[in-house]
Amino acid sequence: MFEAEIDAGVLKECIEAITAVVDEGKLRISAEGLNLRAVDPSNVAMVTFQLQNDAFDDYRFSNEDGEGEGLEIGMDFQKLLGILGIGGREQVRLSIDEQAQKLYTRMGSLAYTVNLLEPSSLRKEPKVPELEFPVQVVMDIEDFRRTIRAAEKVGEHILLGVEGDEFYMEVEGEMDKLRLGLKKEQLIHLTPGTLHSLFTLDYIAAMSKGMSHAETVTLNLGKDYPLQIEFEVAGGKGKVSYLLAPRVE
Amino acid sequence: MFEAEIDAGVLKECIEAITAVVDEGKLRISAEGLNLRAVDPSNVAMVTFQLQNDAFDDYRFSNEDGEGEGLEIGMDFQKLLGILGIGGREQVRLSIDEQAQKLYTRMGSLAYTVNLLEPSSLRKEPKVPELEFPVQVVMDIEDFRRTIRAAEKVGEHILLGVEGDEFYMEVEGEMDKLRLGLKKEQLIHLTPGTLHSLFTLDYIAAMSKGMSHAETVTLNLGKDYPLQIEFEVAGGKGKVSYLLAPRVE
Amino acid sequence: MFEAEIDAGVLKECIEAITAVVDEGKLRISAEGLNLRAVDPSNVAMVTFQLQNDAFDDYRFSNEDGEGEGLEIGMDFQKLLGILGIGGREQVRLSIDEQAQKLYTRMGSLAYTVNLLEPSSLRKEPKVPELEFPVQVVMDIEDFRRTIRAAEKVGEHILLGVEGDEFYMEVEGEMDKLRLGLKKEQLIHLTPGTLHSLFTLDYIAAMSKGMSHAETVTLNLGKDYPLQIEFEVAGGKGKVSYLLAPRVE
Repeated sequence: MFEAEIDAGVLKECIEAITAVVDEGKLRISAEGLNLRAVDPSNVAMVTFQLQNDAFDDYRFSNEDGEGEGLEIGMDFQKLLGILGIGGREQVRLSIDEQAQKLYTRMGSLAYTVNLLEPSSLRKEPKVPELEFPVQVVMDIEDFRRTIRAAEKVGEHILLGVEGDEFYMEVEGEMDKLRLGLKKEQLIHLTPGTLHSLFTLDYIAAMSKGMSHAETVTLNLGKDYPLQIEFEVAGGKGKVSYLLAPRVE
Repeated sequence: MFEAEIDAGVLKECIEAITAVVDEGKLRISAEGLNLRAVDPSNVAMVTFQLQNDAFDDYRFSNEDGEGEGLEIGMDFQKLLGILGIGGREQVRLSIDEQAQKLYTRMGSLAYTVNLLEPSSLRKEPKVPELEFPVQVVMDIEDFRRTIRAAEKVGEHILLGVEGDEFYMEVEGEMDKLRLGLKKEQLIHLTPGTLHSLFTLDYIAAMSKGMSHAETVTLNLGKDYPLQIEFEVAGGKGKVSYLLAPRVE
Repeated sequence: MFEAEIDAGVLKECIEAITAVVDEGKLRISAEGLNLRAVDPSNVAMVTFQLQNDAFDDYRFSNEDGEGEGLEIGMDFQKLLGILGIGGREQVRLSIDEQAQKLYTRMGSLAYTVNLLEPSSLRKEPKVPELEFPVQVVMDIEDFRRTIRAAEKVGEHILLGVEGDEFYMEVEGEMDKLRLGLKKEQLIHLTPGTLHSLFTLDYIAAMSKGMSHAETVTLNLGKDYPLQIEFEVAGGKGKVSYLLAPRVE
């Protein structure tokens, strides 16, 4: 049994963080909250999402099968997002009918019902690879998002790296080059070092749209290594982590 | 002779209510005001429009032919709307040259002249069928418009009905279903009953854009029966009525 | 050596005035400021642009070759504009590396480098023809821009003329006609006369977007003669002049 109530704006922020990488996925519901881990169709990007039960104004979960294993449902996040976009900032009441395999959503007098997806029809939940990131950068999210927007005007690939105590993002076009360089004192945190990795800009651009409500973003970096982007949702009661494979230079 | 002056915003609101159903039509001008009745090209939707002379800041009409019959002109409403969209909220002066078959429009220093359409080239003015609606619902226009916007994300047909003392709008997609249910106390007025009719959503969506300035909307309903939508324009000095044929379920 | 600093909004306003006519051109830099003169690819429109050094918060120029001749660089203005559109209203620092043939642009921590274009690859700087305009009209820029926006809904060519002490702009569609007529007292200045010229509306529409920050615009007119449009940028510290060939009626 799952029933919960949450601010529509908070739920929208969470769903947007997920749809930056995948349109659908397996959502795991437990007494502690919601969890998701999914890869995009090209296997290049992964999203890990957690939302604590105290992000909800009301949260009730019990697993009839016992075991405390949690409930796994297949969700079409894009469909849900379309409907959340309509209302104002109001409360959304969610409940799941496991028998009928449906999610019920209620916003005031508006009721929205969507079929759950058969979990076996969805891509397998990816294993999170064991990664060690030699460098961590924590920065203001607006610096990050603005640079990505500008970078999209210039090229298709973006270099993220550190050089001494400077973090930089760099994109090259045929005729031009854009570079954001932030010194340690302009960042919230920086591990000094000398390394960089190259990424496909499209993925990072989609991710940067998925973090529109966060205040800071944490980038974990290596040398020709995946990029991990972490940020909070739901005023700190939820966590999102993106993982993006590097390009070979 | 017809000459009149009206607030540009009010005129725009009126023309938008008409173009929600038809691009062109026969406008009847009399000493009492303006009237129009027109069907859309597919013969599924009808608009009836009335605007009293006191919606105008100045209104002069006299029929040289005597008879007090009124003047009938063919109008391309889309063309007029394009021009009204440009200016700010100012006064528009309208006059008609019957000899030259032209409408003169003046907004400040800007003069816009458009040829009238030959009335015989336009679709015939429809007869308003004699209808009796067992159920009437009066509701806040924002509830109506928001639901229609959400419904467009879900499906193509919409069910409007009452069930006891609840009015509902319901749309089904392949995977999902959206339903707005409003109890009598959430409505301005409701005739209780048990009936519904199905409509093509596109038409209602266009109509809901045509009523953007109204505050309340009246829905007259039957069982597998046309829908009549009524609302006011020009601060109550004009009335619009849409009639929409039902779909066979 | 060229190095300068300017408000990003002011620079954007200047570049937009140029890109209303050309995407790229030869910019001449001297101790006094910046200059450009360029024709559009179809040879129908010309832009002349001047920006005084005191429009900058810092301006340093010295010609190593001596002579005080000024430096001529080939610029892709569209590329620069894309990047300026991203940041907020902040300072932009510009510098040129003549050896490397690059323009360096710095906005806070964001550095943007763009290759200069080979001046010989660009269209030749046009000669400004010797023209005498019998009529000059100075008007509020909003009247001008609004009329052009409305005119685009009606037709493709626009007539600009004076008739006695009235200035008018007129555009005809197949079914309709739009005319703005401004009497001497509604204008800032008017030379009375009787003449008009016809122009392609697309060019004037692009130009009207290029002057979005000016307050007044000066139109110099003749009979079946080019149109000269003049306005200020950078709060009066820059001047733009467009020249547009007439159409044969």
